[in-house]
Amino acid sequence: MLLTRLLKPSLVAYKTLEKYHASTDEHFKARAIQVKEERAELAKHHIDVLWSDYFKPEHVQKYPEITDLCWKAAKQCSKVKQSLDINEAKTLLDLIDKIGDVWTKAGGPTATRMAKQMARA
Amino acid sequence: MLLTRLLKPSLVAYKTLEKYHASTDEHFKARAIQVKEERAELAKHHIDVLWSDYFKPEHVQKYPEITDLCWKAAKQCSKVKQSLDINEAKTLLDLIDKIGDVWTKAGGPTATRMAKQMARA
Amino acid sequence: MLLTRLLKPSLVAYKTLEKYHASTDEHFKARAIQVKEERAELAKHHIDVLWSDYFKPEHVQKYPEITDLCWKAAKQCSKVKQSLDINEAKTLLDLIDKIGDVWTKAGGPTATRMAKQMARA
Amino acid sequence: MLLTRLLKPSLVAYKTLEKYHASTDEHFKARAIQVKEERAELAKHHIDVLWSDYFKPEHVQKYPEITDLCWKAAKQCSKVKQSLDINEAKTLLDLIDKIGDVWTKAGGPTATRMAKQMARA
Amino acid sequence: MLLTRLLKPSLVAYKTLEKYHASTDEHFKARAIQVKEERAELAKHHIDVLWSDYFKPEHVQKYPEITDLCWKAAKQCSKVKQSLDINEAKTLLDLIDKIGDVWTKAGGPTATRMAKQMARA
Amino acid sequence: MLLTRLLKPSLVAYKTLEKYHASTDEHFKARAIQVKEERAELAKHHIDVLWSDYFKPEHVQKYPEITDLCWKAAKQCSKVKQSLDINEAKTLLDLIDKIGDVWTKAGGPTATRMAKQMARA
Repeated sequence: MLLTRLLKPSLVAYKTLEKYHASTDEHFKARAIQVKEERAELAKHHIDVLWSDYFKPEHVQKYPEITDLCWKAAKQCSKVKQSLDINEAKTLLDLIDKIGDVWTKAGGPTATRMAKQMARA
Repeated sequence: MLLTRLLKPSLVAYKTLEKYHASTDEHFKARAIQVKEERAELAKHHIDVLWSDYFKPEHVQKYPEITDLCWKAAKQCSKVKQSLDINEAKTLLDLIDKIGDVWTKAGGPTATRMAKQMARA
Repeated sequence: MLLTRLLKPSLVAYKTLEKYHASTDEHFKARAIQVKEERAELAKHHIDVLWSDYFKPEHVQKYPEITDLCWKAAKQCSKVKQSLDINEAKTLLDLIDKIGDVWTKAGGPTATRMAKQMARA
Repeated sequence: MLLTRLLKPSLVAYKTLEKYHASTDEHFKARAIQVKEERAELAKHHIDVLWSDYFKPEHVQKYPEITDLCWKAAKQCSKVKQSLDINEAKTLLDLIDKIGDVWTKAGGPTATRMAKQMARA
Repeated sequence: MLLTRLLKPSLVAYKTLEKYHASTDEHFKARAIQVKEERAELAKHHIDVLWSDYFKPEHVQKYPEITDLCWKAAKQCSKVKQSLDINEAKTLLDLIDKIGDVWTKAGGPTATRMAKQMARA
Repeated sequence: MLLTRLLKPSLVAYKTLEKYHASTDEHFKARAIQVKEERAELAKHHIDVLWSDYFKPEHVQKYPEITDLCWKAAKQCSKVKQSLDINEAKTLLDLIDKIGDVWTKAGGPTATRMAKQMARA
């Protein structure tokens, strides 16, 4: 399920930043920066995969906004890496929500066993 | 969502084996073996993470079967790597279904934004 | 020098395919498929980096073809992975040449020490 | 030799923490946290491999404590990652010593060339 | 082009150290240390590859200084990792320049398409 | 224990080749080639680390043969990757034995807890 691969690391980056700002423990904060870095990079990788592997010419024709959304989301991942501002992580989540809308319209989720697991969850 | 990380690569391993047996293209088959290898290894890694990070002593006390299920599932990943028999991949999926049952009972899915995405899916 | 990171692995993929077809040694051929796979994946990664990190809105405005070129090149990497047809690897090289033209027009190469090394080479 | 793969990174984590506390150099300390993180993760990976690949049902039947030891050791690796307290690293070493006892009883070391090297060491 | 793989990460390490010392932003500085670490490690890897894969006995016979240059450069990468002193990064660049001289004399650059790209750059 | 990191993967490469030649199972053989490739690469990496990190100028002065031994061993790893000939893997083991002799003379093994584990093994 391609989209969870975008959303999960982005959410972890967001929550890690929340914890970072709530903490006064320098060791914890150093580790949080590292976690944020890795997750934002991971989200970026999966945005690239979504754009260049999943979306086909017919998708882009029908939903031309997808190119710009993926581009902005990928660049936003870099901003999350560079910043401690939680608004940057929030902006990333919002962009992924928008990508998720297109992905769903494009017929994203189909695997039935996965769907069953999801429903169960 | 830890469980999708188990299920997704296991499903890919299963489906890759299906395609392997349906194909007569040697290049495709060589690549399929590689995909199966990587996905089974990935599933194994996430089973280990589930067992050693996610499950707490109180889970194991309440659902003592979880230890044996994770152990068997991890070993089953190795069998999937070693074999071209699709039944081995099927057995792995069944074990993950059982782990999924315990995980759900143990209160697995909680993240609301993820849940929304899942529902949408 | 971002562009050499695209071109080098793509060239290796191309040449590896040439050697693959010229060889009758099964061990060599199995290893060649693996090399092709890795290099095409590496090229794909660096195309994604070029597109989402290097190119800025002003580049895309001035050279709107860059989006489509990067997209096609990334998808072409997947074709190189899936195929033994050397024409697919040739098509990838041609796409990278076109990306290289835009990149040069966009002011790509600037680092002077690198440039000196390049000149020396 | 599976056990050295557990012990070596755990020892490095322990010694790195010693050096961390003995140092006043911020750059060194930042790097030490990183080293500790990686080594504890590596130890954790090899504990998982030992548990899910090396130990067979007959081992677990004969030495039922092995499951709990591996589980605690894997969780202890996470504690070493999260903490600057050297006692956490010491506890990990003690757990690995206990795993080592079972592993030796279970017939762990057999490769003769390795044994020769070990003896020489 | 093997040599760019040495030079590029070494240059990034050098420039990252420059930026580190020019900055007062703790988050930026923590990330800069990480970048320096990774790039110096990458340079080290490619120095090892150059030495053990590229250079042949006839090169070493003709240019016996290459062994010592590669050895010193590899060790210098470790110093760059351990230090915030920009002179260590400068020393690494100087050693790579010397390796570059030998490499060029040894007939390093040959790939014509690469050369064309380089010229264009 | 640096030397086990050289010896273990080299031994696995050797034994994997033995099993490769003893087998008629094409799936097993494809996986064996992959294992051999990875282990030879791993051995090569650790030979490079031994040479460029562990050995100091005083070692090289006292045991000048170490440079040539490490160089030959690293190149031999590439031969093991390229070949199905078990003699190549045997040659690698012999070179590592010779490196082991120097390493022991150079005072290699010192960590006492490791030594205890080794003795126990």
